[in-house]
Amino acid sequence: MATELKHLTKRSENYSQWYNELVVKADLAEQADVRGCMVIKPYGYAIWEKIQQTLDAKFKETGVQNVYFPMLIPKSFLSREAEHVEGFAKECAVVTHYRLKSGDENQGLIVDPAAKLEEELIIRPTSETTIWNTYKKWIQSWRDLPILCNQWCNVMRWEMRTRLFLRTSEFLWQEGHTAHATREEAEARAKQMVRVYADFVEQFMAVPLVVGVKSATERFAGALDTYTIEAMMQDGKALQSGTSHFLGQNFGKAFNVQFVDKENKLEYAWATSWGVSTRLMGALIMTHSDDNGLVLPPKLAPIQVVIVPIYKGEEERKAFSEKFAPLIETLRAKGISVKYDDADNKRPGFKFADYELKGVPVRLVMGGRDLQNNTIEVMRRDTLEKETLAFDGIAEHVEKLLGEIQENIFTKAKRFLDDHIYECNDYDEFKQRIADGGFFLCPWDGTAETEAKIKEDTQATIRCVPFDYSQDNLGNDMVSGKPAKFRVVVARSY
Amino acid sequence: MATELKHLTKRSENYSQWYNELVVKADLAEQADVRGCMVIKPYGYAIWEKIQQTLDAKFKETGVQNVYFPMLIPKSFLSREAEHVEGFAKECAVVTHYRLKSGDENQGLIVDPAAKLEEELIIRPTSETTIWNTYKKWIQSWRDLPILCNQWCNVMRWEMRTRLFLRTSEFLWQEGHTAHATREEAEARAKQMVRVYADFVEQFMAVPLVVGVKSATERFAGALDTYTIEAMMQDGKALQSGTSHFLGQNFGKAFNVQFVDKENKLEYAWATSWGVSTRLMGALIMTHSDDNGLVLPPKLAPIQVVIVPIYKGEEERKAFSEKFAPLIETLRAKGISVKYDDADNKRPGFKFADYELKGVPVRLVMGGRDLQNNTIEVMRRDTLEKETLAFDGIAEHVEKLLGEIQENIFTKAKRFLDDHIYECNDYDEFKQRIADGGFFLCPWDGTAETEAKIKEDTQATIRCVPFDYSQDNLGNDMVSGKPAKFRVVVARSY
Repeated sequence: MATELKHLTKRSENYSQWYNELVVKADLAEQADVRGCMVIKPYGYAIWEKIQQTLDAKFKETGVQNVYFPMLIPKSFLSREAEHVEGFAKECAVVTHYRLKSGDENQGLIVDPAAKLEEELIIRPTSETTIWNTYKKWIQSWRDLPILCNQWCNVMRWEMRTRLFLRTSEFLWQEGHTAHATREEAEARAKQMVRVYADFVEQFMAVPLVVGVKSATERFAGALDTYTIEAMMQDGKALQSGTSHFLGQNFGKAFNVQFVDKENKLEYAWATSWGVSTRLMGALIMTHSDDNGLVLPPKLAPIQVVIVPIYKGEEERKAFSEKFAPLIETLRAKGISVKYDDADNKRPGFKFADYELKGVPVRLVMGGRDLQNNTIEVMRRDTLEKETLAFDGIAEHVEKLLGEIQENIFTKAKRFLDDHIYECNDYDEFKQRIADGGFFLCPWDGTAETEAKIKEDTQATIRCVPFDYSQDNLGNDMVSGKPAKFRVVVARSY
Repeated sequence: MATELKHLTKRSENYSQWYNELVVKADLAEQADVRGCMVIKPYGYAIWEKIQQTLDAKFKETGVQNVYFPMLIPKSFLSREAEHVEGFAKECAVVTHYRLKSGDENQGLIVDPAAKLEEELIIRPTSETTIWNTYKKWIQSWRDLPILCNQWCNVMRWEMRTRLFLRTSEFLWQEGHTAHATREEAEARAKQMVRVYADFVEQFMAVPLVVGVKSATERFAGALDTYTIEAMMQDGKALQSGTSHFLGQNFGKAFNVQFVDKENKLEYAWATSWGVSTRLMGALIMTHSDDNGLVLPPKLAPIQVVIVPIYKGEEERKAFSEKFAPLIETLRAKGISVKYDDADNKRPGFKFADYELKGVPVRLVMGGRDLQNNTIEVMRRDTLEKETLAFDGIAEHVEKLLGEIQENIFTKAKRFLDDHIYECNDYDEFKQRIADGGFFLCPWDGTAETEAKIKEDTQATIRCVPFDYSQDNLGNDMVSGKPAKFRVVVARSY
């Protein structure tokens, strides 16, 4: 709906502002009228739908089934698991009444004091409590296990400082909740799901990751272990992009979910939960995009190829339309989404800038001379490289190019990640360099004290104990000087 | 998770109880711990997903795009459209606070009085208000129109008497919201969408309908016209299954959404909205099912074919497994969902009853003797007819049979509907017969008085002015005796 070219702040000027502007200007989302909430616009939602569909299929391949649990949770449920309540009861939307009525003159609608709830209800910040209160009814015997459920829904956490997709009071997510007969099976499921996330994020979003396990301080409230995928943004900060929790028997005990095991003994059920949210959109946008706008991985781009004919007059417009019809059909038959834009109310220059802003991976342009020569200009969004090619065989070229772009943006982001992971054993050096961003692999003594000091001194946090970096020859903790227990990734984060 | 056969009340004993039991026993849904809300279980949700996917594709074919708007609506928004507030402000969940805190000893968590919202927020009962407050920012010129958005989400209406799927406080739905430059275009869209619903419900759910327009009394709050699809349940009562509203300029004016039209004049935008919900699940269940359980239309059945081998010992079990592998592959290649059940912890008789209860359209059973003879028993759920056929060619037979079942259950339901639509011009006759159920085509003078009297006397309501029944030779209103303006469908309803 824009009619003129939109100016975008450069990343080097102000990375944070660049992101905020990009989300709005590329028509992905905007601030809602309710504080801290967002409106996800059609173009943004189309990307989210692709994320959903792909992940949903991957969950189902592992035996997971979808369900739906209520969005309102009785206040008392939150208190049942001691750590959980600390993490989630504090900032939440509380429903206290169930009716409005007309007030006195000029008052408009008022809350009807007669319609006060006996027990207040909370809009779910996450659903462990209500789900485990229900699982109690579903689980009697080991034969009822495992239960592998997931739901796609909205949740609400009353955040003070919000940013579109990265942190909003209401957001969309999926939350998986599984129940198991043994500790081993539950732990394996929690690890399996973090790998499902990692594979999806790397292979579809083209965002390279560090996968690992959180420190006790950074764990989900109520978990024994939290596995995490951590991405690196272009400013070197970490973005936690998904987590999977091994919950032990904490919720089984809190909600008294017992079952008869194979040895005929009563045992509490073992649990996991795992989630990714619309925050993934933030990771996607921030990892690949540039000063011209979005760069989308072809596998998740709502429009993979845009075709813009540059015509003079209706006759040539018609000639282009006929020329492109078979190509469009061929591309679509290959499962490639194509937009043909011969609208006459926008100049080609505007269209080019707009499709760049929106991150369409491949642009095909044909002018009158191309028509004569049977050639076409192909531009790839990731490198902005253009080349003029023979029209014949262009469908195969485009198909191959989409694969190349997908690979290239991953490789580029992976190189950036690798180039900004530093081994660091010296706290002074760490303090000097942390402001420039990057992931620091540091020896840690495993204490909360050291962790707290790092955070206080530098605002950086332990992101995880990484699975795929060596835990040998740890040396001493860079802060306390005591023997280190782990080599951890320390970074500032979103 | 059941280990014994579940008893189901017969429809003839108590239709209402039959439905309530069926929903729970077929593992579709159950009451949640929050009053009036439901848990949709995996089997129920799998059907809802198929409904969603099919409808979503149909919406997109008409140019609709998906979006997401916040679930919380500022209280003042509701007051902006005078009729809308009457319809929706009354029974709704009101968020008044955004924090809990630990109370004094033994009090547990309490609402933090310091965290009171300046303006209360309502959990959306429907989203016209928040969406039109946003459309105001999106619409300046006729070039920005039409806007064709839809969202799949949860909504909340504080219902006093609830029943699973039919009426719950929280439910899942889609709500489409379109904005147009002209009255004609908006009216055409509202009519188009009720036809999209009707086609889906008849062709996929196999539920025959009466399509029409609501009386002023029964319209959506804020609409100029409400189009409706009305289904008939087996007790002859109507179930309103979807509505599409022509909203005129009511929301355009209430939210001051003006645009410059082609003649360069300022004009208010024209609106429609339209929705179907998890109530469709109720229609699906109640229309086709019988005293043995669910009967599902093959097009929406999560499992279309179940295969149960009856084996003795591991060797025969393995022989069956090998025998069926190619058939399963063939069926799946045809896009048919198959479950192979050779579990050894349940007797075949239990399995048969359970798959009947769950409405699996086709059951294939093979015993040792069939294995020798290369034959197989085929049962169709709709008629419960069994026949033994040659194993070879069974995939083609099953494929054809699924089509036949889809057609047969529609035909059966259509015959039931047609047999229970009565032309009725006499009020005494109407009062006598209405308790037996059915749709009565009655002459109506168009007044709210007559409509109110019918409702008071008989609990029946005017369901719609039907599109597909004659409006000629109307005669006189059966209540007032005045000249009739329409022939309407009058019925008791859910």
